[in-house]
Amino acid sequence: MNQGLGRASIRLKEPVYILNSASIVGTKEGQGPLGLLFDKVGEDDMFGCATWEEAESSLQKEAVGMALEKAGLVPENISFIFAGDLLGQSIATSFGISSYEIPLLGVYGACSTCGEALTLGVMSIAGGFADRAACVTSSHFASAEKEFRFPLEYGNQRPLSASWTVTGSAAFLLGNETAAGAAKIRDNGGPRAKITGMTVGKIVDYGLKDSMNMGACMAPAAASTLERHFIDFNSQPDDYDRIITGDLGKVGQTALVDLLKERGYDISSLHMDCGIEIYDAESQDTHAGGSGCGCSAVTLSAYILKQLEEKNWKKVLFLPTGALLSKTSFNEGKSVPGIAHCLILEAV
Amino acid sequence: MNQGLGRASIRLKEPVYILNSASIVGTKEGQGPLGLLFDKVGEDDMFGCATWEEAESSLQKEAVGMALEKAGLVPENISFIFAGDLLGQSIATSFGISSYEIPLLGVYGACSTCGEALTLGVMSIAGGFADRAACVTSSHFASAEKEFRFPLEYGNQRPLSASWTVTGSAAFLLGNETAAGAAKIRDNGGPRAKITGMTVGKIVDYGLKDSMNMGACMAPAAASTLERHFIDFNSQPDDYDRIITGDLGKVGQTALVDLLKERGYDISSLHMDCGIEIYDAESQDTHAGGSGCGCSAVTLSAYILKQLEEKNWKKVLFLPTGALLSKTSFNEGKSVPGIAHCLILEAV
Repeated sequence: MNQGLGRASIRLKEPVYILNSASIVGTKEGQGPLGLLFDKVGEDDMFGCATWEEAESSLQKEAVGMALEKAGLVPENISFIFAGDLLGQSIATSFGISSYEIPLLGVYGACSTCGEALTLGVMSIAGGFADRAACVTSSHFASAEKEFRFPLEYGNQRPLSASWTVTGSAAFLLGNETAAGAAKIRDNGGPRAKITGMTVGKIVDYGLKDSMNMGACMAPAAASTLERHFIDFNSQPDDYDRIITGDLGKVGQTALVDLLKERGYDISSLHMDCGIEIYDAESQDTHAGGSGCGCSAVTLSAYILKQLEEKNWKKVLFLPTGALLSKTSFNEGKSVPGIAHCLILEAV
Repeated sequence: MNQGLGRASIRLKEPVYILNSASIVGTKEGQGPLGLLFDKVGEDDMFGCATWEEAESSLQKEAVGMALEKAGLVPENISFIFAGDLLGQSIATSFGISSYEIPLLGVYGACSTCGEALTLGVMSIAGGFADRAACVTSSHFASAEKEFRFPLEYGNQRPLSASWTVTGSAAFLLGNETAAGAAKIRDNGGPRAKITGMTVGKIVDYGLKDSMNMGACMAPAAASTLERHFIDFNSQPDDYDRIITGDLGKVGQTALVDLLKERGYDISSLHMDCGIEIYDAESQDTHAGGSGCGCSAVTLSAYILKQLEEKNWKKVLFLPTGALLSKTSFNEGKSVPGIAHCLILEAV
């Protein structure tokens, strides 16, 4: 294969640029430590809609619309949109982005969906099939609780290992601009970063069954993908300024660090988790941390890309993590398998 | 863009080969007109499992296993698997294919998922990111009725416009073999056909709300993608030996032919629908026809590829169609948007 390393990893010959991006979040996220960095914070979590699901759809629509506007692009400039969410049959996507009329390739990777969408978006551009692609993912606390656990009205208690689904969506516009073209777009505020490689994850199932402790369920998948990445790219943890997982939370973080230590990699001083960053666990009562397709997406757009733009970091690994359960599989006593996809993001 | 035409269409510089494929179906499909062509027919629709969902997972596992065996390949030969199903959070996939440990990119396009998986699989190979990729999709009558409409125990009546979800799964192995390499694999029974172009569909929503008439909901999307395809490739319907939709059924077929006539394209003598072919509507009481992610997939593997191998057809359009609804969106009064993705399949 031309651009591949191992079978799961791809080192790009030419980088693909994140031309621009945008994020929108709910009230709780707006009150969190990253609150001032998001492009838009809703006044309430219905976002003017009649149902939680419609509210989530409106988040995707807003995120894509803001990203296009920031980049000075229109929907007709985008060849493909890679989009997904956590709801059954991805209805937040279907009813969120249809008005843009962009050819759609729907993706599902639970909370790893942002990583999967970016990976496929990069392939569409680096493979020569598109000049520009969009990637968008979302989650909403209320629609996710209804989809996976208990309706909010039930008032169930949450164990300390539970995570809090982020209400938010972020959209990313990818392009194949040459260095000169990229510099020009930078004058308009972008490109924000470049993607130079990817490692696609496989399903990892340690047999854990606790849907209130998804960090522990996903940590083995994150460890598997990271180990694969280090081997395939012949790299070490300290080749990166940060190693950033999606939504392992505090319980999952401990598990990941331990699992990688067993395999000879110490990431303890480099690891960051979007789910831990997005809330103040103490004052916001969010327990293990944030989760959801929107968690890693809005943190990437608002915080991680900003650090790369400001050259505080030069090169990071971005690794959204997903728990592959449904209400049905949980009720039928199945385990919660995990998956994680990894991208190398570098400052332009 | 190198290989693109319009923004939605891709004409491949080098074809991607369908190295081999395999299909497994339930009893009803085994008794239908294509029954003798499937690789495996279950003895009953539980396939030895405890739940309908597990049964559907076992279909994906079997389909991938049989396809690998037929091609003389092992899971380690496959870089990526593009997989999906109709169940919430794609659990048929998550619990079906994990034992192969192939890097997974999960896709969701309702019943168009087979077309989407093949499109992305082709991109991964034609873009130089993989030598070989797998694509698998599935559906199961009982798990789908539970997921989308009524539990079977409820014994509801079905209108004549309703379709019957196919119990089945098919897997396809794609490769970038050169002509010489392809000829060699042919001695082992493959490659079965080559893919030379694709047109990716967008969401099309005519505001229809009847989940018991999905053919009518999907026909506008099929018409949109076909019109786009004919324009982008500067082709006409009679450039193809057949134009094959996924699961429009009889009501949707009439709508599609009419919609395209309005746009100046007459496909009436060339149109075929996998959902119409797979059952004998009269004797099997399946009403409008078959549907589901498995419908177009098993018909492609068992029937369409056979016609191409035997040179009865030289070039066809394969166009799986999807209805983007969920139980939740239906109950909240939303419409049923459609999507369809198109691939050009040619005899080797």
